[in-house]
Amino acid sequence: MNLSVLISEIHKKQSFLCVGLDVDLDKVPLTILKQPKPLVAFSKAIIDATIPYAVAYKPNIAFFETYGSEGLDALEEIMSYLNEKYPEVFTIADAKRGDIGNTSTRYAKAYFETLGFDSITVAPYMGKDSVEPFLAFEDKHTILLALTSNQGADDFQRLHVNEKPIYQVVLETSKKWDGSERLMYVVGATQANSLKEIRRIIPDSFLLVPGVGAQGGSLEDVAKYGLNKDIGLLVNSSRGIIYASEGADFAQASAQAAKTLQVSMAKILTSYKA
Amino acid sequence: MNLSVLISEIHKKQSFLCVGLDVDLDKVPLTILKQPKPLVAFSKAIIDATIPYAVAYKPNIAFFETYGSEGLDALEEIMSYLNEKYPEVFTIADAKRGDIGNTSTRYAKAYFETLGFDSITVAPYMGKDSVEPFLAFEDKHTILLALTSNQGADDFQRLHVNEKPIYQVVLETSKKWDGSERLMYVVGATQANSLKEIRRIIPDSFLLVPGVGAQGGSLEDVAKYGLNKDIGLLVNSSRGIIYASEGADFAQASAQAAKTLQVSMAKILTSYKA
Repeated sequence: MNLSVLISEIHKKQSFLCVGLDVDLDKVPLTILKQPKPLVAFSKAIIDATIPYAVAYKPNIAFFETYGSEGLDALEEIMSYLNEKYPEVFTIADAKRGDIGNTSTRYAKAYFETLGFDSITVAPYMGKDSVEPFLAFEDKHTILLALTSNQGADDFQRLHVNEKPIYQVVLETSKKWDGSERLMYVVGATQANSLKEIRRIIPDSFLLVPGVGAQGGSLEDVAKYGLNKDIGLLVNSSRGIIYASEGADFAQASAQAAKTLQVSMAKILTSYKA
Repeated sequence: MNLSVLISEIHKKQSFLCVGLDVDLDKVPLTILKQPKPLVAFSKAIIDATIPYAVAYKPNIAFFETYGSEGLDALEEIMSYLNEKYPEVFTIADAKRGDIGNTSTRYAKAYFETLGFDSITVAPYMGKDSVEPFLAFEDKHTILLALTSNQGADDFQRLHVNEKPIYQVVLETSKKWDGSERLMYVVGATQANSLKEIRRIIPDSFLLVPGVGAQGGSLEDVAKYGLNKDIGLLVNSSRGIIYASEGADFAQASAQAAKTLQVSMAKILTSYKA
């Protein structure tokens, strides 16, 4: 997908919400569990309910891989559904992949071609030749881990190299890679205090921001320093939306939770001048 | 698998060879392509041919994921075959996973339980709470990326934090994590000059060493500083073994290539005193 489509959808829906599909069969209602393909049934119901309020969907690959080939089969069906019914929606494979060149090319083909995602999250530890194979795909996007939302972010990402935290070195170094115009970055919502510095380094890139809701990040704090001329933010919520109710009304409840976030986002967008 | 089984197999076979299953259907012979499940047929043939010379097998998950659910189905069949026919063999999911806690638990279940691997490779960028969920599994092993074999290893892994390269910080920090006795580390064969320092920090851990062969690393250099009291090395070769011939004699050729490495390893083991 060309990013102009995403940006236009953000303005149309007055939303920069991404819905995370971390589908856990221990948490879905009985009516879903009784169906032959519960992962698919649940995901489709959530997508149909939240589509007026969301511009992106982010299946968390671990939650599908845990069911082996059956899980991947479900993911294929969900992606076909999204790409056919809602082609204007931006899709993110939350996969955190990254390996030596010829292997990264395989992962890129798996997610961009076989499964039809618009983007994938990638870990930077193995450096340039592990990320560039993803960047080689036209109209596909690579979302590099920069500063994540979890406690462990402090273990390595905030250590200093020449008085600069490693996550900033990752941002600066990655800007020089071939295809870097197709890079986006993961910055946790719990890290809003670092967004000003991050925006100084990468003013134009989209940021995928998980950690609003269950993990405790604030939407307002993220918007304050994260927004740019293209809006430039995708704020993700997973559990807060898809498990808003564990009863038969789960879909309506997810719509309501998504709408609440969208209304806050619309307010932010109305008062925002780039 | 308990590591005592692996160590005993190393002594029995006089080999610390791991065969990497990076199965590329563009490189397998026509006789294989004509079969209904070519990924499975090729892998089984390679395993049966090389089993006298190898103590570990390492499917590269990207090469299966690239075929979607069909690829994962093949991987399940290959893993069942390995676990039933050769239960003494150590299996490695080369997956380079790593995510926030509840997601890492899902990946651990996918590879340790659903697919039945003994171990998985994991990236350290997200820190302690992204790795400990893997370490929580009894008799399973987590192989953390330390210093990889590719050029991009220089981009971040060799940068200095307080006069110490980041990969050494990863080694030292990870030793303190819960379940660290189940940690192993990836160190590229092209990085043999750093092995002395690495062994100073983690004298007891097993190292998975890719990069011998196609990537240019030397077995003798790796053994010189890498061996420890338990041998402590798994040296991987992928392309050099599985594509030793692209003709109908591919299986015999792979056995010959594996045997050549095993003979060199036996020589090293004979002259080695811990």
